Amino acid sequence: MFDPRDLGVVLGIDPGLSRCGYGAVRRDGHRMVPVAFGVLRTPPDAPLPERLAQLQVDLEALFDDLAPMGVAVERILFQVNARTAITVGQASGLALAAAARRGISVTHYSPNEVKLAVTGYGGAGKEQVQAMVARLCNLESPPKPPDAADALALALCHLWAAPLRDTDRAGAATAATGFQRAVTAALSKEEMR
Amino acid sequence: MFDPRDLGVVLGIDPGLSRCGYGAVRRDGHRMVPVAFGVLRTPPDAPLPERLAQLQVDLEALFDDLAPMGVAVERILFQVNARTAITVGQASGLALAAAARRGISVTHYSPNEVKLAVTGYGGAGKEQVQAMVARLCNLESPPKPPDAADALALALCHLWAAPLRDTDRAGAATAATGFQRAVTAALSKEEMR
Repeated sequence: MFDPRDLGVVLGIDPGLSRCGYGAVRRDGHRMVPVAFGVLRTPPDAPLPERLAQLQVDLEALFDDLAPMGVAVERILFQVNARTAITVGQASGLALAAAARRGISVTHYSPNEVKLAVTGYGGAGKEQVQAMVARLCNLESPPKPPDAADALALALCHLWAAPLRDTDRAGAATAATGFQRAVTAALSKEEMR
Repeated sequence: MFDPRDLGVVLGIDPGLSRCGYGAVRRDGHRMVPVAFGVLRTPPDAPLPERLAQLQVDLEALFDDLAPMGVAVERILFQVNARTAITVGQASGLALAAAARRGISVTHYSPNEVKLAVTGYGGAGKEQVQAMVARLCNLESPPKPPDAADALALALCHLWAAPLRDTDRAGAATAATGFQRAVTAALSKEEMR
């Protein structure tokens, strides 16, 4: 039978050059266990090639340390301006190449997919997402900085969505329903406050 | 005294995911010697992370084989649409990081700077640039595919511009003038045909 724990550690990446958020989550039954989260930074005053090299070294160390079974990366929207698209493209390219060279599968999620998965509402605000990430990961307060919370939300979204994609595996629907129950429970707790 | 041959091999990179042009040029006095040129390709039907990983492996092999002293990369224009900017950004990020990790200096040039350096006219057409690249490199016909010619043009532009930047070095102006003479000579030959 399908065991969602087989998914191992999922690493969420919110790509960026100045701040690249990362958040690794492991699933223990219906419990989400944050393994590591934070932000990789590069000095804005350093030359671009140096910054990219440093980000690449940091990403590779992260992948090697955490050995994730899957990487969830935020899809870059085409609506952003070209300047932002170039920088985010450069950062995301390093993450995607590092994953593929290690045989780690990569899945992209749009910001709306992440919000929907984590809060039950695709139009949720930043604060709602951060609060839900804290609740689902049993953290006392929303993870800081926000880029780390966004990366954790990507990992949670992947842990929720992965069993749904594998509809031929027995128990997959149950696993997804379990996660949805956790979201619903956390949401009702929120509403009762 | 400054010797332009101290520049060693300069590698031009025209970043792209489907076709990434490269062209390495060495200077021997006022003669430009093409060392290697071609195109790195990735299969358009492969998943994006696989394609980026393959491009990264190929770029790293190129840098290690040619051991260039400098890399000249085409500046991505902000006028392009966001979709193109993301893909070109992803490809260029890999090249910049690979260079920086090897301690190779990177210089960006706009398409107009390259055209001006190689043809003497910033508004030159693709064919004019390709023809001048062939002449300056003593090639019998314009290098194919065009991405390789564009990359060679970047390397030539760097070899021309680098001494100009080092105005404190003796002989720099002479070296630049020598290159400009070569461009002028090639242009007049063209006009006489």
